[in-house]
Amino acid sequence: MPIYKAPVEDYKFLTQEVFDFSTLAELQGFKEISLDLVEQVMEETAKIVENEIFPLNQSSDHEGCKYENGEVKTPKGFKEAYQKFRDGGWIGLACSPDYGGQGFPKSLGYIFEEFMDSGSLAFGMYLGLTVGAYRAIYEYGNEAVKEKFLHKMVEGEWSGTMCLTEPHCGTDLGLCKTKAIPQEDGSYDVTGTKIFITSGEHDLTSNIIHLVLAKTPDAPEGIKGISMFAVPKFTIKDDGTCGDRNGVWCVSIEDKMGIKASSTCVMNFDNAKGWLVGDLHKGMQAMFVMMNAERLSVGLQGLGLAEVSYQNAVAYAKDRLQGRSLSGVKNPDKVADPIIHHPDVRKNLLTMKAFIEGARALSCWTSLHLDVSQKHEDLRVRQDADDMVALMTPIIKAFFTDLAFDATNLGVQVLGGHGYIKEYGMEQYVRDARITQIYEGTNGIQAMDLVGRKMPEGMGRLLRQFFHPAASFIEEKQEDERLSPYLMPFVKAYSKLQQATAVTAQKGIKNPEEAGAAATDYLHLFGYTALAFMWVRIVDTVYQNYDKYPEKKSFYDTKLKTAKFFFDRMLPKTSSHFSSIMSGAGSMMAFDTEEF
Amino acid sequence: MPIYKAPVEDYKFLTQEVFDFSTLAELQGFKEISLDLVEQVMEETAKIVENEIFPLNQSSDHEGCKYENGEVKTPKGFKEAYQKFRDGGWIGLACSPDYGGQGFPKSLGYIFEEFMDSGSLAFGMYLGLTVGAYRAIYEYGNEAVKEKFLHKMVEGEWSGTMCLTEPHCGTDLGLCKTKAIPQEDGSYDVTGTKIFITSGEHDLTSNIIHLVLAKTPDAPEGIKGISMFAVPKFTIKDDGTCGDRNGVWCVSIEDKMGIKASSTCVMNFDNAKGWLVGDLHKGMQAMFVMMNAERLSVGLQGLGLAEVSYQNAVAYAKDRLQGRSLSGVKNPDKVADPIIHHPDVRKNLLTMKAFIEGARALSCWTSLHLDVSQKHEDLRVRQDADDMVALMTPIIKAFFTDLAFDATNLGVQVLGGHGYIKEYGMEQYVRDARITQIYEGTNGIQAMDLVGRKMPEGMGRLLRQFFHPAASFIEEKQEDERLSPYLMPFVKAYSKLQQATAVTAQKGIKNPEEAGAAATDYLHLFGYTALAFMWVRIVDTVYQNYDKYPEKKSFYDTKLKTAKFFFDRMLPKTSSHFSSIMSGAGSMMAFDTEEF
Repeated sequence: MPIYKAPVEDYKFLTQEVFDFSTLAELQGFKEISLDLVEQVMEETAKIVENEIFPLNQSSDHEGCKYENGEVKTPKGFKEAYQKFRDGGWIGLACSPDYGGQGFPKSLGYIFEEFMDSGSLAFGMYLGLTVGAYRAIYEYGNEAVKEKFLHKMVEGEWSGTMCLTEPHCGTDLGLCKTKAIPQEDGSYDVTGTKIFITSGEHDLTSNIIHLVLAKTPDAPEGIKGISMFAVPKFTIKDDGTCGDRNGVWCVSIEDKMGIKASSTCVMNFDNAKGWLVGDLHKGMQAMFVMMNAERLSVGLQGLGLAEVSYQNAVAYAKDRLQGRSLSGVKNPDKVADPIIHHPDVRKNLLTMKAFIEGARALSCWTSLHLDVSQKHEDLRVRQDADDMVALMTPIIKAFFTDLAFDATNLGVQVLGGHGYIKEYGMEQYVRDARITQIYEGTNGIQAMDLVGRKMPEGMGRLLRQFFHPAASFIEEKQEDERLSPYLMPFVKAYSKLQQATAVTAQKGIKNPEEAGAAATDYLHLFGYTALAFMWVRIVDTVYQNYDKYPEKKSFYDTKLKTAKFFFDRMLPKTSSHFSSIMSGAGSMMAFDTEEF
Repeated sequence: MPIYKAPVEDYKFLTQEVFDFSTLAELQGFKEISLDLVEQVMEETAKIVENEIFPLNQSSDHEGCKYENGEVKTPKGFKEAYQKFRDGGWIGLACSPDYGGQGFPKSLGYIFEEFMDSGSLAFGMYLGLTVGAYRAIYEYGNEAVKEKFLHKMVEGEWSGTMCLTEPHCGTDLGLCKTKAIPQEDGSYDVTGTKIFITSGEHDLTSNIIHLVLAKTPDAPEGIKGISMFAVPKFTIKDDGTCGDRNGVWCVSIEDKMGIKASSTCVMNFDNAKGWLVGDLHKGMQAMFVMMNAERLSVGLQGLGLAEVSYQNAVAYAKDRLQGRSLSGVKNPDKVADPIIHHPDVRKNLLTMKAFIEGARALSCWTSLHLDVSQKHEDLRVRQDADDMVALMTPIIKAFFTDLAFDATNLGVQVLGGHGYIKEYGMEQYVRDARITQIYEGTNGIQAMDLVGRKMPEGMGRLLRQFFHPAASFIEEKQEDERLSPYLMPFVKAYSKLQQATAVTAQKGIKNPEEAGAAATDYLHLFGYTALAFMWVRIVDTVYQNYDKYPEKKSFYDTKLKTAKFFFDRMLPKTSSHFSSIMSGAGSMMAFDTEEF
């Protein structure tokens, strides 16, 4: 049976030493947030995930969701677990107290999410989608709509969904055909078919609030004509309780590679009563609020899956005896040595570890900016932080999930044949991780978002939110000899990123296909460079605190070694991404369609 | 529904233009082999795979194998399909006419295998394992054993297996506990448990011949004490027909990530009657004959899965309309352009294509050497060819399957959400491909075989079989200006490979962990360089034949473009592998076990 222990120790290091989460208390509404409180929440989160959710992960994958007559049955144990999360107020952890939420910072919410994603990605999505829908309504809905929906969503009595994709369009939402006809009472009649709707139907809550993108009859063509509507499964009476069944039905669920315990639904809307969320024809705006938050969450999903795969791969590698260590017998009393002594097994494990810990740091750094972007009193500071989050969102979504997918595969590889069979649970992490590269905008779309939108915006205004702190750090630390084995390779990668940025931006203006051709390599180059920045900051923190906390010596030493591995063995990938970018679009655009 | 058309055109180019398969006729026993015959066999193979097997691939994955009371039921349609393959003599395609085989060259057998692997990897394994077992018995068995088993195996009346792995040992076969006690009649009593036995039990044949590694009571410790035994499911009477049920039973089958239609069995041997194959305590030798042939086959499995995934990804990308081409509307009558116009989609497709076609060339080059190694009249020529095959075997096994796994994932990515659901068949290729990186020795083991065994052997004697032809080619072609855009990057990669070889070999002598730490990166560096050699040879062939066959202009042009893409976008990976190798073992060996 797989094991899992939430990485509280690593998060304590990040929130207390590398980034100072006590600064959260300076933000509006977070006066009460202290490092002690952060730690306490983490430990509670760890407990509920380890004890209530993780034990269901394998059985629920095996069982999957069952569809019958428009209804979806979730796997055994999910109802009880959902109730516990609801009772504990976990769904509203980072939601506004105005609607019953606990009002914790989002940065804390993302830590909770990583643990949940390790525990059971499929289960976590039933909670996560509600929070995503909450955010869109909270930001864009009028008071009446907020009052109607948010209390019960935050409390977990009702859940939420995002209904974007249609059979003929996913990425290109301008092609959306779902119609919304205004009614006399101010509501809308929504009709159309949506596919790939996560949690579109299930048996965990008494109502489900669908946020649906649709077009009103007079809407402009394309993406500018899209509006967002909240369409509940059961209509809502004036007293706020559920009324009649609304005209929205799940007609089937998908049989998928993974996340089998999460229902992925085809939803038919047939004159379903809905309420406008936000302004007419401004649905994409509201959708992007939800989407951007979800994209960070998806990055965290990758991280969570890589972490649980890593823990199990390590446990197996310490236990499994095969062959002898190349540097001499390590286990003289046994017939063979544990495979963790073999260099190639170490390489696999350390590739996972160095990614996970670097990514976790980047996630903390970004989510701290997210809180600042929403709660700092100074507009200018908020704007800068918002730019940083906007820049990092596609990187965290795509780079984390690409590397996480590879990491879960390395986890399988460590177990060999035992990794391929269901019994050990390792192949499930691969199947579950695979979707994270696809949903909420494929990773190719993330790369296009980075080079096509984030890079040019405000003449590189967003880019400065990474380049400036990185440059300052380099300048400040360049004389620090202890740092130099880490700083030097970082500087090289950083300068490659700068060059690639200049070239891609310049070429992209004349020919957008040049930007498109560079996009994925550029995103990975950026991702590795950003991880390198995190690792060098971690090393810097370690050296600053080394003598201060002598009891942490072994923890610190391991961080230094992991950093070294990252710079030796992973950062070199920046060279190949750089060359690939520099080769330009020619070799891929030269093909006629028939030549494929 | 997925589509598949066997790549006969590409194989015609390879066998007729790049490598001259008519030279096969100069080998012993292949007098009749002409290019026409090769083409004819390919076309027949294509037909049977496209029509009889490929249509079963998806349904058989869905259905899987069923275990009940020691018996295994294969999915619907497999029995009928097996009968057709048997009737057509396909199983014995490359087996000796002495035992009823068709006596075709192995290089032709491998083409057949690629098609089969695209058609249905799981089905193909029922045939493939028989051929593997045939090879071991054919090479090492005495006349009596060969007579007893081979006729019916070649004919397909009986099938074969390889029983190596035990619960506590896979890679480290020296730990094998299965016992074989000699009996008065010259047979052996075999007792033990074997796991992960492909085709260990099924309903396609009237008998199953298990080749079992076991130790006799007086056997030396470890790997030197292993012998190989042929243990049939039903004992064999003196007249060659099946007798009583032997003491070998399938006690369960594995629930796996993929290849669900292939039975993976736990086999109990309980005083089962077996016959020695080869000399006592020389089981590893016989096992390696079987294993090496299988390793090439596994590489081909990767290739076959990448090919079928590619074909379906291309079909989808030409059909699916989303967004507009960045260089202007391509499809003015429709609401959007096909996604094949988007650079990132092209990058995914071309990464698949350039791998597939380069790998196919490397496979042809190697399998031609395999035939020469067995059938050339000159011992010296045979030895050289054998060295070449031995060198390429771990590369083809591991590099092909690593890149093929990535390719099948790119295929999924092109389809987005539709790639993740079972309906389109794309995720099955990923799940099926995943095992190829694991079985017949994990890819980490292949890398160790390359640096630890193949590299040092005879002071680099094996390496010369790649380095010499590559160096001659470079010298011969260095003045050819048309070739230069391809030859130059190849030369750079080649010199990196030479450097890495020297460093790894030298460091590895002093400290084997250095070789172990470099192994996987070195194998990939070698793999990319070998593909580059293939691509530059393809380009050379194209330029030589360009004016000769004007009707092939568009085929040739596409080859040149694909080569360009390979050199621009894929070969740069050699840089990062090179840096990674050069960083040495330090950063991964520095960790204590507790630090993971």
